[in-house]
Order: sequence, then structure tokens, then C-alpha cells
Amino acid sequence: MPALNATQPPFGLMQDWPLTVDRVLEHARVNHGHREIVSRSVEGPIVRETYADLYARARQVSTALLEDCVQPGDRIATLAWNGARHMELWFGAMGIGAVLHTVNPRLFPEQIAWIINDAGDTHMFFDLTFLPIVEQLAEKCPAVRRWVLMTDEAHAPPAGKIPNLAIYESFIAGKSRDVTWGNFDERTAAGLCYTSGTTGNPKGVLYSHRSNVLHSLTSLQRDSLGFSVDDVIMPIVPLFHANAWGITFSAPAVGAKLVMPGSKMDGPSIYELMDAEKVTFSAAVPTVWLMLKQYLEETGKRLPHLDRIVVAGSAVPEAILRSYEDDYGVKVFHAWGMTEMSPLGSMGATTPEFREQGKDAVQRNKLKQGRPSFGVEMKIVDDNGNELPRDGKTTGHLVVRGPAIAGAYFKNAGGNILDKDGYFDTGDVAHMCPLGYMQITDRAKDVIKSGGEWISSIDIENIAVGHPAVANAAAIGLAHPKWDERPLLVIELKPGQSASREDILAFLTGKIAKWWLPDDVAFVEKIPLGATGKLNKLQLRQTFRGYTWPEQAVAAR
Amino acid sequence: MPALNATQPPFGLMQDWPLTVDRVLEHARVNHGHREIVSRSVEGPIVRETYADLYARARQVSTALLEDCVQPGDRIATLAWNGARHMELWFGAMGIGAVLHTVNPRLFPEQIAWIINDAGDTHMFFDLTFLPIVEQLAEKCPAVRRWVLMTDEAHAPPAGKIPNLAIYESFIAGKSRDVTWGNFDERTAAGLCYTSGTTGNPKGVLYSHRSNVLHSLTSLQRDSLGFSVDDVIMPIVPLFHANAWGITFSAPAVGAKLVMPGSKMDGPSIYELMDAEKVTFSAAVPTVWLMLKQYLEETGKRLPHLDRIVVAGSAVPEAILRSYEDDYGVKVFHAWGMTEMSPLGSMGATTPEFREQGKDAVQRNKLKQGRPSFGVEMKIVDDNGNELPRDGKTTGHLVVRGPAIAGAYFKNAGGNILDKDGYFDTGDVAHMCPLGYMQITDRAKDVIKSGGEWISSIDIENIAVGHPAVANAAAIGLAHPKWDERPLLVIELKPGQSASREDILAFLTGKIAKWWLPDDVAFVEKIPLGATGKLNKLQLRQTFRGYTWPEQAVAAR
Repeated sequence: MPALNATQPPFGLMQDWPLTVDRVLEHARVNHGHREIVSRSVEGPIVRETYADLYARARQVSTALLEDCVQPGDRIATLAWNGARHMELWFGAMGIGAVLHTVNPRLFPEQIAWIINDAGDTHMFFDLTFLPIVEQLAEKCPAVRRWVLMTDEAHAPPAGKIPNLAIYESFIAGKSRDVTWGNFDERTAAGLCYTSGTTGNPKGVLYSHRSNVLHSLTSLQRDSLGFSVDDVIMPIVPLFHANAWGITFSAPAVGAKLVMPGSKMDGPSIYELMDAEKVTFSAAVPTVWLMLKQYLEETGKRLPHLDRIVVAGSAVPEAILRSYEDDYGVKVFHAWGMTEMSPLGSMGATTPEFREQGKDAVQRNKLKQGRPSFGVEMKIVDDNGNELPRDGKTTGHLVVRGPAIAGAYFKNAGGNILDKDGYFDTGDVAHMCPLGYMQITDRAKDVIKSGGEWISSIDIENIAVGHPAVANAAAIGLAHPKWDERPLLVIELKPGQSASREDILAFLTGKIAKWWLPDDVAFVEKIPLGATGKLNKLQLRQTFRGYTWPEQAVAAR
Repeated sequence: MPALNATQPPFGLMQDWPLTVDRVLEHARVNHGHREIVSRSVEGPIVRETYADLYARARQVSTALLEDCVQPGDRIATLAWNGARHMELWFGAMGIGAVLHTVNPRLFPEQIAWIINDAGDTHMFFDLTFLPIVEQLAEKCPAVRRWVLMTDEAHAPPAGKIPNLAIYESFIAGKSRDVTWGNFDERTAAGLCYTSGTTGNPKGVLYSHRSNVLHSLTSLQRDSLGFSVDDVIMPIVPLFHANAWGITFSAPAVGAKLVMPGSKMDGPSIYELMDAEKVTFSAAVPTVWLMLKQYLEETGKRLPHLDRIVVAGSAVPEAILRSYEDDYGVKVFHAWGMTEMSPLGSMGATTPEFREQGKDAVQRNKLKQGRPSFGVEMKIVDDNGNELPRDGKTTGHLVVRGPAIAGAYFKNAGGNILDKDGYFDTGDVAHMCPLGYMQITDRAKDVIKSGGEWISSIDIENIAVGHPAVANAAAIGLAHPKWDERPLLVIELKPGQSASREDILAFLTGKIAKWWLPDDVAFVEKIPLGATGKLNKLQLRQTFRGYTWPEQAVAAR
């Protein structure tokens, strides 16, 4: 066989154009340089800069970092809200091969200190809001060489407890814009984001330039985020949540206007910005949409500009979906993902099969977690890793594979995380249907294993919270002499309401399979929640460790 | 600095997921396995297969090729129309690391033979239509070990002149589907497509798996092709034109239904398929759209399903654009590209700035070649390679860079084709506007250089053909004693029409800058056209080599 070119094996003869994120901002500067990033600043006023400004200021950030002896691979941390300065740090750090490490400011200060030290951050950029936290952190994080307050001198506090403190605007003022970006291997580390499991220490996900660019491209497909230059995009999801679901890259990639809510995420503030800037697309967790819906109902206001929203972070409640679609004419898409997936995994875009069945079928299907776009491979497997059928009912461990999915955690925490075929176990239990839609039925650690079969705790809870007296519900599996495990349903009643064990069980009867019916109901003052608002079942299982099933429950089965 | 992982330099810790095209079809099989590819077969009937069928049959093709001793890097040629069998060869050959070489059957047999021999093809798959051509080719192409007629035994001809002839359906019948696809470097060569310049021999563009996947992803952006699973896509542009503008990959990537017109590309046949299969998207050269428009006008038929079309290959005529948009409610997008660009370079998606100016401004802007999506870098440069301003009027050489743009031709034909910054010179002259839109004003070799300034031959021609007596017009630059070059306008009159030199010049006056006015007009029986229907200016310049300018033309300037 004649060689196709000088290099073996026979390679194609296309240009070598590494997928580095600086090219995304370069594209925005050249083709959409005048398009705006509108931010509600932490100092108060609405500020406007263009992609050309963002590019110029990010170059100054790069020079300032280089002059501060930042090396490729160094971790540059942020504790900041969604705003243009935060975006400048993104490209300023990544452009020179440093790693932008976004820290979640909602964690406890001790957790933040642990994460900063684990990451080995050399710099920490933070918003004014977080000055009190940083004053506590500074002495606990000796490896941080520079703390930079993201404001100007006029808003800087009097000299305080933080050593090596710089003020952002002075730190970058007058710095050269003549700096080289990119020009390195596309697998170079670009971003670091810790994910906090319910057990053990948080683990870092180390994104690469390649994974960021590919995640951006795959998410730009019409049936995923599908951004256009006509979009005005408001990421309410924080930038510190996996690059705001990748919007830091996907918005400039298409030249869309960005609207950044800063620290104010209450209904009136969000609405005001949305309306004034004619936002067409927004992304947030269900709580935000619930809050905005309440504000709209109270004020009678409408959403004339908003075309579509993406809801993720936790399952979209049906009432939210139907209200936004039917009452406000906003298309709602349910998405699912994980920090480890950059983060988008699946998206609830409709297929013709559901459209043909009418609106109700479409909306019911939208409550599922959605289907993967090209770039994410997804399957369900049994305990031994064998693929299970996509029949819309068989549940199994959800495992995923793709170019923007973690292959290991930072510093190899937790060891090998891939199976022999390179799939990552999401820790979720799900079923999939022949049309590609995936529905999560449980977390693997929360699933109730009764007589070799799985009972979905989430399904039981979703029905139980429909009882008028129930404020919150958690189904947990407890050891059972005959069936290995059986469900105990823990109920938190609404203030002033009452319901008996029999009331709750009667309410469930007929709505789930008979063998799924909890063997007992326990009432508690308050169901414990984790830092992100999810049910803390680990704590519940500890609370009920010594629990004894009632006689009749053991006898009945 | 602590190492981020075991490998230096500090790389991200994401999965290794090579961008190989087999993953595209795998995605379609798993998530959209029941979606159809509907083809008008060369044998006559409409045939239907699903992505699951396509996958299964492509696997059989792979096994058949492997059993026929095909090695990675071997070139597998096709002479075929758009149809499902042709698509099977795509994935069957590429999946095992062989190179699918699509040959343009519209070339002269001698050119086809030259290309097959230059490529070193070992196999040639061809449609029934091309049996007479292949009978001529066989003895001229001794390196082709196997000729495969893409039909079944019932349609096979009696034993003829072709040695080693196989019949497609028998060639793949019963072959194992248990074959490994992919699992190689993403830079592996995947496809070969020759581009015929106006001078010299055709040159091969050798696509890689990576370039195909990245081209597909960049073209799937909403402001580019923007396919959805809801689309029914009819590529009228042939598969042998740079993978039908990439549709062979971008359609399965989103699970869209495909409709393949086969060999019948007349108005009634195209309309019949479009209507019956409810096509929402189609792509073709202007001639096809003109033909369909005539058919619609004659029959009074409408296009109720068609949502948008892409027109490329040559500039979209204004009448076509306005008629499809205004009379038929079909969105028209003008695209520009080259075989060397995989092929999409720019796309006429509108930005908010034009939308605000109203429909007329939008439509006028759509006549330009469009703007690049992320993944294509584009700039205009002077003769020394210095970048020129994007002011909407300064013209320069259009150069491009990107991951799906050629870095060299097959076998390094023509030597180095990139400048020091890695840009490829398109051979076009264009201007760009601050909003990113590019407009081609000439081919570099056709531009008329008068007194150090450039005159666009295309602009003069576009106006001249508006004269009622003019059938075709070509402006060429001829040597001039004072201005280096001046324009000569060559006119082909419509049968039975007449016009004088003065009539033509008077018609142009006021419509172009005074110094662009041709110094003379020459009338010819027939303006020569190249194989692809473009003006053959090389031949015209040869014809007029000894030309002498009229006295007054030389004196006047």
C-alpha cells in the first residue's frame, strides 16, 4: 500500500487546529465583537461590555497573571457570581494554560478551605460579597500567593486581615494585551470543578480545553441548547456549576448576547433583567423557576421575550413545566447531567413520535430526563455490567461515555472510575426507552432491593408528596428478615396538618405496584436535607438503623 | 508545581473518546434506529431502510471488504448517486479504517481514469447507470482489484467486459456483522474527494475521521445547517460533493430522516419525493432550485412541508431567493464553501442587526456568501499576507483556517498550501463586513488589476446580464499600456437579439464606478464554459491574447 502521506498510519491531510477555548472567544471578538455581556454588578449598577472588551480585558488578566509568575497548570481559583469579570478570568487564565478553578461559595468555609488546599490554588479571585468568608479562609490556605478582590479601588475595603490582597481593576490596569493564547495541546487542563458527594471528601473534575470545546459543540445542536446569534442568554445557573452548564463557551461560540444576574437571584431582580434585556433563553434549577412563577402570579406580569428555558439540577416538577408552557408560552426543556459530564448528559427535546400524539404526550415525556445528543453514549447495565434492554421499564445502573466525561478525578481521588469499556458509572438508576429517552428512578445507593428486585424510592416519594398533608417524604430501604430490604416511608407533615400511617398507605395504594407499598410509615419533625437541598438519606438511614418492623409487616410478606 | 496527573504536560482528566465517524452511525442506531432513509433506487422503486438496517448492512460491507483483503488506508472508490447503498459504503469502508473515495461521475471518462489511478483505488463500487463508463474504465485502471455493481443479481447484466466484477447484494450477502469499527487514531484518513481546478490535474482532499466529525458538529449549529430530529433532509447535492456538504454525517448525528433522490433530479421527480416524504430541509445548487421553481409555476403546486433550503455551489440569484421566501414561504440560506473545507465555510444566517432593518435588508444581506460559524477562521489579506480591514468594501484574498480545512493535497500535490500562520488561500477575492459577512467579488485569477486597484469581474458581469439582449457576459483583464490591465467585456447575445458596444456601455454607466467601465466590448457566438458550468475565462484570455485596445480607450485614461 502506498503511503498516503509522510506520517504512518495513513492520516488525513487536514489542518492541525487544536480545540482550545481561546479560539471560542477569538471567534466572538472577530465576528461578534460588538455584542454585549450585560451584568448586574456586585457593586450595584448594571454594567455593559462587549465581546471585544471581554477579549481585551481577558488578555490583560493573562499578562497580570504571567507577571505574577503563574505557570501553565497552576490553579487560579474564583469565588464569584455570574458577571463579566468572572468571564474575563475564564479566558484570561485558560488562554495561558492555567486552570480556572471555580469554587462553590455556598459550601461551608471549612469545606472551601479544604478544596482550595486540595487543589493547590495559587490565586483566589473573589467578589465583594465573599470578603467575610475570605477573611476566615486566608490563614487556612497558605499556598494561595495572591488574593484578588474583584472590584475597583473605590469599592475596596480599608486594609484588613488578608495578606497579599490586590484589587482586580488595579491588578489588570494598563497590562499588555499582547500575549499569546493557546498554541498548546488541546488535552491541556483548562478548568477544575469539585463535586461534593454525600460521602467522603469532594472530588475535583479536571476539564481539558478539548472537552470544553467538544461539550460546547455538542450542546449547540438544535435539540440540545441550540443557541443562535439571535438569542439573549441569561445563565442563572452559576458559572461555578460546570461553566454554567457550558454557557461560558457556547454563548460566545455563536455570538449570543449574555445577561448575567450577579448576586441577585430573587424573582423581581431576575424578572427586571429578563424584561429589560429581552432575554430569550435561560437556564436554572427548579427553585428559581418556582420563585419567578410566584412573582409572575403576584404581579400579573408576562414573559413576552422568553422563548425557552432549561431546567436541571433536580427533576422538573410537572406544575412548573405546564405552567410555563401553557400560561406563559415558554418552551420548557428538562436536562440532566453531572459535573463529571461537563455537565450536559441528556435533554428533553421532543421526537416526531411524541409530537404526533399531541401536547399532553409531549409534556409528559418532557418530565423524563431526556435523550443524549451525539457526543454522549449512555446505557443501563446490571450489577455485573451487562447491558439491559431499552424497553422503558427495566431499570439498571446508568453508565456514560464521551469526550467531555471524566476519565478520573483530580489527583486520582477514588482510583479508577471507568469500567473495562471506558464507561463512567453515574451512580443513578434509570430506565431507557427505545426512542432514546432516559428516566432516572433512583440513586443507586438509595434504591430499595426487595427480594432481588428494585423498588424506586423516588417514585414512592413523588406520589407521597401529592397527599395534601405531606410536606416532604423520603423512602428508604431497611433490612428485612425475609426480603433483604423493604421500604420505610418517612413523612414530614405540613404545619398544622395530620395524617395516619393508614391514611398514607391508603393514598399510595393503587398508584404503585402492590409489592412496592412501604411496610411502615414513620413521621418526623423535619426530613434532613443536604447542602444542595436534596434529601439526606444517609442521615435518615443512620437515624432508623435500629428500627424494628411491625409484626404484621413481617408476617404479611 | 505539583503534577495534575501522571502525564506531563498537565492534561485534563477527561475520557479518551476519539472522534471517529463510526460513532455517528452508532448514535443513530442506538437512539434513532427506526428512523428511515428513503431512496429512489437506480432500479426504479422507492426503497426504505432504517438507521438500524443501514448500520447492519454497513457492517456486512466491512466484513466483505476485509475478506477481500482490504487494509487500513486502502482507497475504496464509488461512482454512485445519492442512495442508501452509497451510504452503506461510507460507513462500511470508513469504519475499518479504509478510505472512501467518491468519484464525480460527471467528469469525462479519461479524467475519471486518471483520478482512479492517482488515488490508487483497489475497489470501485458503481451504480447501474455507470456500467457503460466502467466498461471503458476497467482496462485503463489495472490497480482496481474488484469492480462491484451496486445492484442485485436480478438486475445484473450478462457477463461482460469487466474483470473481477461482483454484484453488490451478493458481495455482502450473509457476511458477518460482528466486526470492530473505529478504535484507531481520530486523525486516520476517512475520505478522499478530488477537486478539479481550472488548470492542472485534479487534486485530492484527504479528509480524516476527526475533520468529518468536527465539520459535522460545527455545521449542526443552529445558524449553520441546524438539523433537528424533526427534520426530513433531502440532499440533492450529490454525496460525491464533499459528503453532500457533510450531510452523510450530520443527518445521522441528530437522527433525522433522510430522503435520497437517486439519479432523478428533474423538477417532477424531486417534487414528488419532497411532497410524499414531507421533506423539511434540502440542499442543492441554484440550477436545481430554478428547475423546481419552474415546475411549481407550471403546475401551481406548493411546498407546504419545506421549511428551509440551502443554496450553494454558485451565488444564489436574487430572484430565486425572493421567490422561495415570498411566494412559497421557504427560508433560503446562501452558503459558501469548497471541497477543501469539507466543504462548509460560511452560511447566510441573519444577525439581529439586519432583522431590525426589515425583510428587504435581510434578503439583500442573504445574497452575500454569509458568515463563518465557530470552527472556521476567515480573513482577507493583501498580496503580502497582511490582514485587511473588515469594512464591507476593501477587497483582498480570502484565506481560511480550521480543523476541517485541508492542510495539504493528497500525495502533497502542489506542495505547501498554507501560509506561515496556517491559513489556506481559497483563491477567491472578497470583502468582509464588521458583522462577519463575507462577499466574494472575484476569483483571484480573474480579478482585473487596473492602476494598482482591483476591479471585480463578477460585479460587471452580474450587471451586464441584466441587459435584455445579453445571454451571458464575461469580463476579463487584458494588458493595457498605462493601467497594467483594463476590463474587456465579452458578450454572448440571446438568439435573434442585437446590441451595440455603446448600448452595453450605456447600460453599465451609473451602475458601477466610472473607472470600472470596460474599455471595450467584444461580441462572441458562445462564451466557453468549464465542466461545472462556470465561465472558462482561461480560454477567453487565450482567445483575446493578441487583442488591441481601440485608440480612444487608450487615450481616454
